[in-house]
Amino acid sequence: MEKQEDLIDFLENKQNYIPHLSIDCVVFGFHNNELKVLLLKIKNINTWVLPGGFVGMSEGIDQAAFRILKERTGLENIYLEQFYTFGQENRSKENTLGNLLGIDQYEAYKKSWISKRFVSIGYYALVDFSKVNPTVDDLTEKYAWFELKQLPCLAFDHKDIIEKALATLRLNLDRKLVGFNLLPETFTMPELQSLYETILDVSLRRNNFQRKILNMDILERIEKLYTGAANKAPYLYKFKPDSQPKFDE
Amino acid sequence: MEKQEDLIDFLENKQNYIPHLSIDCVVFGFHNNELKVLLLKIKNINTWVLPGGFVGMSEGIDQAAFRILKERTGLENIYLEQFYTFGQENRSKENTLGNLLGIDQYEAYKKSWISKRFVSIGYYALVDFSKVNPTVDDLTEKYAWFELKQLPCLAFDHKDIIEKALATLRLNLDRKLVGFNLLPETFTMPELQSLYETILDVSLRRNNFQRKILNMDILERIEKLYTGAANKAPYLYKFKPDSQPKFDE
Repeated sequence: MEKQEDLIDFLENKQNYIPHLSIDCVVFGFHNNELKVLLLKIKNINTWVLPGGFVGMSEGIDQAAFRILKERTGLENIYLEQFYTFGQENRSKENTLGNLLGIDQYEAYKKSWISKRFVSIGYYALVDFSKVNPTVDDLTEKYAWFELKQLPCLAFDHKDIIEKALATLRLNLDRKLVGFNLLPETFTMPELQSLYETILDVSLRRNNFQRKILNMDILERIEKLYTGAANKAPYLYKFKPDSQPKFDE
Repeated sequence: MEKQEDLIDFLENKQNYIPHLSIDCVVFGFHNNELKVLLLKIKNINTWVLPGGFVGMSEGIDQAAFRILKERTGLENIYLEQFYTFGQENRSKENTLGNLLGIDQYEAYKKSWISKRFVSIGYYALVDFSKVNPTVDDLTEKYAWFELKQLPCLAFDHKDIIEKALATLRLNLDRKLVGFNLLPETFTMPELQSLYETILDVSLRRNNFQRKILNMDILERIEKLYTGAANKAPYLYKFKPDSQPKFDE
């Protein structure tokens, strides 16, 4: 897609989507005490974006989010969850797609549906980034996992979207622990604590952490096998089936 | 607005809104250990709806939510918070507005923007219903506060929207306690416990509840004034300034 006209044409072909409505996916990756976010680099310019797209006229928004993530990054079977809808009037006014792509002076662009205001529904996911293998699509030239404190130049309000997703992840970590499926089937208390510390970006006291987690009543301790030898290995835990943290009554 | 044609005309005049996008407001009312939800009855038919409306082309979605709540119920200065966006493809297919209003056989309706699929952004609020005074608008004939276990016949997927709002309120109650401004400036521990019990629809043990709340570190205990007389009144509490519950480290 070399010429600007081809680009406009390509964008214009998306007529069968709901106008003014988009979806952006924030995919957090966790591995070895690191938390990162998946971004795509737009071709030819030094600007990165979240994997995003549009909602088909006959497509549910959840269905659209899964399709978009798959089309843009190759990732599938990821537990995506809606977290917030971004609809400030001027959320991409300073930095429109036409401006980024250098096509905003073309009449065809000005008249196109893509040049209009968009309200964007945010979805987020948390994956073990060592276990997934993203790809790129026609509009982007590469992907990368970025540390949250070292984000590159981002388009539109995508930095705000990432911050809101991170705040949501932190607030809901207790409840999301099971669903996000980040730990191996059995794990130690220090492994679980590392995950909390990485995502919350804090140090936690071991005893307090252990008490808090055990109070949530979502873990099952696996009895050590009697081997006859001294056993100093830490206890292993697993999530109780269908466990959801309870209100601490 | 007697004639169907006038009604279609009235609906058609809303051209200056973003197509396919609506907002619905779930206003919960709390008072004297009762939790209710505010609904509007559509004129001439036995169907109730949440106060809802559309987003102006140059209007932020939060701004639209406040305007809609004010236009439809007269309520203003209410702390509304976005909680979820409802976008299943068939969310109002079985029960369209045209069907409810008896205008779905008119060509003008079929062609109108109002007959199309809508994705709806949900906002919720929690107010002391003894302190607010809703009104009705042109489309509705009355309003009422309904108990959550005794909801009337609701349009579209509004029952699902109320359930999702209630689940969100319950999950976030600790964090929302201050913002929703439901208690008088000073209150007793039993008053706070009643609020929790009503909203969560559970009984809580007094000691456990008190420990949990005090651990959140958002309350300040007011020292009793020394009057010389025996004083068996319960302690009064108030929220600490800018208090937000912390992660229980």
